[in-house]
Amino acid sequence: MPSNATTPLLRGAAAPVRGLPVVPSQGVLRPLGMADVTIDDGFWADLQELNASTMIEHAQSWMERLGWIGNFDAAVEGRLPHDRRGREFSDSEIYKLLEAIAWEGARTGDPAMESRFQALSARVARAQEPDGYLGTMFGRPGQRPRYSDLEWGHELYCLGHLIQAGVARARTAGLDDSFVDVVRRAADHVCDVFGPGGNPGVCGHPEIEVALVELFRVTGERRYLDQARLFVDRRGHGVLAEIEFGQQYFQDDVPVRDATVLDGHAVRALYLAAGAVDLAIEDDDADLLAAVRAQTLATLATRTYLTGGMGAHHEGESFGQDFELPPDRAYSETCAGVASVMLNQRLLLATGEARHADAVERTLYNVVAGSPAQDGRAFFYTNTLHQRTPGRAPAEDEVSPRAASSLRAPWFAVSCCPSNLTRTFASLAAYLATVDDDGVQLHQYAGSTIRAALPAGVVTLRVSTAYPADGRVEVQVLDAPPSAWALRLRVPGWAQGATLTAPDGTSTGVAPGYAEVRQVFAPRDRVVLDVPMAPRWTWADPRVDAVRGQVAVERGPVVLCMESVDLGADVSQVRVDTARPPREHDGQVVVRATVLDVAKGPWPFAADPVALVRGADAAREVPLLPYRQRANRGPSTMRVWMPVVDPASPTG
Amino acid sequence: MPSNATTPLLRGAAAPVRGLPVVPSQGVLRPLGMADVTIDDGFWADLQELNASTMIEHAQSWMERLGWIGNFDAAVEGRLPHDRRGREFSDSEIYKLLEAIAWEGARTGDPAMESRFQALSARVARAQEPDGYLGTMFGRPGQRPRYSDLEWGHELYCLGHLIQAGVARARTAGLDDSFVDVVRRAADHVCDVFGPGGNPGVCGHPEIEVALVELFRVTGERRYLDQARLFVDRRGHGVLAEIEFGQQYFQDDVPVRDATVLDGHAVRALYLAAGAVDLAIEDDDADLLAAVRAQTLATLATRTYLTGGMGAHHEGESFGQDFELPPDRAYSETCAGVASVMLNQRLLLATGEARHADAVERTLYNVVAGSPAQDGRAFFYTNTLHQRTPGRAPAEDEVSPRAASSLRAPWFAVSCCPSNLTRTFASLAAYLATVDDDGVQLHQYAGSTIRAALPAGVVTLRVSTAYPADGRVEVQVLDAPPSAWALRLRVPGWAQGATLTAPDGTSTGVAPGYAEVRQVFAPRDRVVLDVPMAPRWTWADPRVDAVRGQVAVERGPVVLCMESVDLGADVSQVRVDTARPPREHDGQVVVRATVLDVAKGPWPFAADPVALVRGADAAREVPLLPYRQRANRGPSTMRVWMPVVDPASPTG
Repeated sequence: MPSNATTPLLRGAAAPVRGLPVVPSQGVLRPLGMADVTIDDGFWADLQELNASTMIEHAQSWMERLGWIGNFDAAVEGRLPHDRRGREFSDSEIYKLLEAIAWEGARTGDPAMESRFQALSARVARAQEPDGYLGTMFGRPGQRPRYSDLEWGHELYCLGHLIQAGVARARTAGLDDSFVDVVRRAADHVCDVFGPGGNPGVCGHPEIEVALVELFRVTGERRYLDQARLFVDRRGHGVLAEIEFGQQYFQDDVPVRDATVLDGHAVRALYLAAGAVDLAIEDDDADLLAAVRAQTLATLATRTYLTGGMGAHHEGESFGQDFELPPDRAYSETCAGVASVMLNQRLLLATGEARHADAVERTLYNVVAGSPAQDGRAFFYTNTLHQRTPGRAPAEDEVSPRAASSLRAPWFAVSCCPSNLTRTFASLAAYLATVDDDGVQLHQYAGSTIRAALPAGVVTLRVSTAYPADGRVEVQVLDAPPSAWALRLRVPGWAQGATLTAPDGTSTGVAPGYAEVRQVFAPRDRVVLDVPMAPRWTWADPRVDAVRGQVAVERGPVVLCMESVDLGADVSQVRVDTARPPREHDGQVVVRATVLDVAKGPWPFAADPVALVRGADAAREVPLLPYRQRANRGPSTMRVWMPVVDPASPTG
Repeated sequence: MPSNATTPLLRGAAAPVRGLPVVPSQGVLRPLGMADVTIDDGFWADLQELNASTMIEHAQSWMERLGWIGNFDAAVEGRLPHDRRGREFSDSEIYKLLEAIAWEGARTGDPAMESRFQALSARVARAQEPDGYLGTMFGRPGQRPRYSDLEWGHELYCLGHLIQAGVARARTAGLDDSFVDVVRRAADHVCDVFGPGGNPGVCGHPEIEVALVELFRVTGERRYLDQARLFVDRRGHGVLAEIEFGQQYFQDDVPVRDATVLDGHAVRALYLAAGAVDLAIEDDDADLLAAVRAQTLATLATRTYLTGGMGAHHEGESFGQDFELPPDRAYSETCAGVASVMLNQRLLLATGEARHADAVERTLYNVVAGSPAQDGRAFFYTNTLHQRTPGRAPAEDEVSPRAASSLRAPWFAVSCCPSNLTRTFASLAAYLATVDDDGVQLHQYAGSTIRAALPAGVVTLRVSTAYPADGRVEVQVLDAPPSAWALRLRVPGWAQGATLTAPDGTSTGVAPGYAEVRQVFAPRDRVVLDVPMAPRWTWADPRVDAVRGQVAVERGPVVLCMESVDLGADVSQVRVDTARPPREHDGQVVVRATVLDVAKGPWPFAADPVALVRGADAAREVPLLPYRQRANRGPSTMRVWMPVVDPASPTG
């Protein structure tokens, strides 16, 4: 495999040098980052702008208000533990925000973002101890000793996020940076304590693994890679204490090399898997890579919601059994969406397989993009597919419990999701395109400019699209080398009847996977991918018991839903008529539906429940809306999966 | 309403004097207890024998082995907290066991049970403090202070179970008993601390309320009733701390008088409701009684499983939303089954309404009777209706996490369910029959002798039945007064086509509710109730999304299920043919079923999932078995709700 040795970083360069979170040293595809990709128009550009203008500030302001940033000041001023506020892992939210600010500052060059980074990172840096340890929850007089609660203390988890912030800084401002020094000292400390012959433990919440491998990649220090390997290999042998959830909760029941599917706490499982892919790539460990790939594919096949969301159990924020995918109790934590994108992107780079880019697309459009409110000041933590009760809107200054999912909340007592969104939105460029020796591959579609260095020379492309509203993607070549190369465009797995039009005007039908045009390209040559976007009925595998007799509607990569606001009734009693296809009407997708009138009996089980159905109102067309746009019109009920009219069924 | 003033208790009488857990001072129906009812044959007699011979010893032996009983010794010997073992509420398991031993000793007069009670209660009694406090978790040097954690400390919960043990002792051995003295001192302590002007708190886990009212009933001390009222009225105003689960978890968001349905942690909600009924009866508070009755009926209508089980959320062991009843994630804690029986029995006594006796029947046969293994040495804590994976059998000496539900476990780290079973089985006689001025009412059917004192004289009945295997219940009058009285027999809500045959041989069709024969009865007069027991298809209200397109089978009060052992395949792919009714064949209920062969695709959602179904094997008759008998033949998959063959459905 070709090497992706990091290009030299320019100190304090105004332009970001590499600017992306994942830089494997080998793989089928090489990623392109902020240095090469600029998203400037459309769906993702708008979200990046919302992140820059509002979400980052919103998050920082809440962290300041709740004292989570102040914990670092308190540490320096000797006021801990007395003045400590927030949960044991609150440090990580500051680190994830720093990562976001680093990416964001590099994305636009905005000096205000740089100032923000300097000011916030300085407060963090001051709290670092002489031996490199950094954390506000443990180790001081009156606090529990360091690493005395590996199961739940989250110390290495926090340090992992600190390291990822350092990697972002290194890849945007260069290695010669005081914050990067802080991070390297912290990583050295971790290696000192947990290295060979040291503390044989692992962290209850994986994260340090993926961080250490990236730090190895950006610094070249093999010690960090070795430590990541130690952590991954120790885990899965019951090294953590038995807990009521069971050791699969933190993936300590089975080594990652032997697991066949993702299990336990979803975010933990996904972060661990992402780190294991990174480790496998750097170690050239084909068995480990194959194992994680198989687990991921099994999870997509049996434990993933239509939205791409993962996590079917509220208890333990965990995966359920195969095909156990209840829409109403979907947990589908936003952080699990982010982590699934991280994992699938790594597998895409390693294998080049379209299904991973398909998963990234589905999850970005339906879970990640739907978490923030339109004004960027409230979020979903959990992402249900069936909102049974309207709930109520939290107040602007209210800190919500994490699993309250009826309406977006400004902040949560556990606020891992908003900070995960900020760093993901800031670094979105990393998901659009890759390069190999053969050419350029486009995986996600956004109005953007893409520059790729091929062996024979530089390719510059302009992508114009209104995706996902419109299925037309136009790629114009601005610059290209004089020899032939291959432009490959992903045709999504759901796309039937897509066509690719070459520069000479010839159109070909293209199947899901990657469609290719291979030729010598001249400036102003255009390649156009047309993906049909007709709304479609989607049914579930018969093993998904929870949605038997129900149907969903998708349009392109976007999952739709129905809200009571449009139905004019509680969605619990809707029945849709699948004899006619869903159709576009006045810019909306509509389905034909009716509402059952069901009598309330004393006992809901009987030999003849048809008697409960007193009738149905008149069938009419009811608009659907993108799932990500749910709950934007006040409290309402909502469902993605809708019961189907079935005259053959005893219950109608 | 007529008064049920307790009859004078004879000290040390070999025969139990009243012997039942609930003795309201007024009500539509007056309960009969162990003094009047002897179960001696059939289904319930066998379970009582298993309890007496095995389950009580098994429970005590585990409590001893794990040191939970030893905590009381350690308390006396000054070895706490150093030697304390078990969870903060482990004291309550000893108290529930004492209650069981008290009932059991009275049930048969077995001197070994009396010795067991004396020995165990003595160890408990020694640990009582001078001010009456009794508990091993709090209050000593090195322990948290008493009542410093009302949310989770379970102190009043434990004391409530202590009090119920004392009530059982008082109602079997008499008020003049040293253990009853211990209990009274503990109750006085509670009133001293939490009375008017004292600690204004409530316990995070209701139980003290129902216990205090019964202690009032057995002692006549109004102070205990007043304290119960204080606890009930304080609750529901956010007096407990905010917790992540939300204050509805412990029913502190809404006062019980204002709640419309049972919500939050199921066992907490049910114990509180039972105590509220007791309070309402003693206070003659019709509004409170009406409120709890309405909540209970709403819960039966929308939040109860077909088995009678309650609790749809693993997280928080809680009720779900209305009609949110997933079979696979059913929590249906055994303790919630016991508590539902307690609540519904109280409402039966208060109102005389058959639906409450129906609920008691359903829950006893399907949840309570199914928790213990056939040998009495293992139990279910949770009671799923869809076992997706075979799981594994815990080892004989293994302590299981509570929610492990694939196979019964010998013991649990949280073992509230086994001890709840022991006290319920020992006091089953209390559920069979009641009396009013008009006659005798039979609610549950078991081979038994029943003696009831009517105003005009004593009635003695012999009930012969093989219920639930057989629907014939023969009631023979052994003794009766010379004037007319009414014998009423419950016709279950599920029973269509039942007949009642009077002593003169005439048979009448009787509808669900109570069927009555009113006449002057002579010795040897027989009344026979014949309840048809043909197996029947049961469908769910269309609002229960989780079982759409699925059907269950019931036979009499018994819910059936299918196991992979009989299907010869994982039950996930079974399809039953409802064109033919389920039938009896060779002593089993069989249904016609097939098994689908479904291809495993990379993504379980598609426009055309029929393509996933590769075929089905030959239809054949497959036996079902009573749900309570599940998991008795080793690891297997199981389901109560079975998908129906539906040629009209795209997914088959």
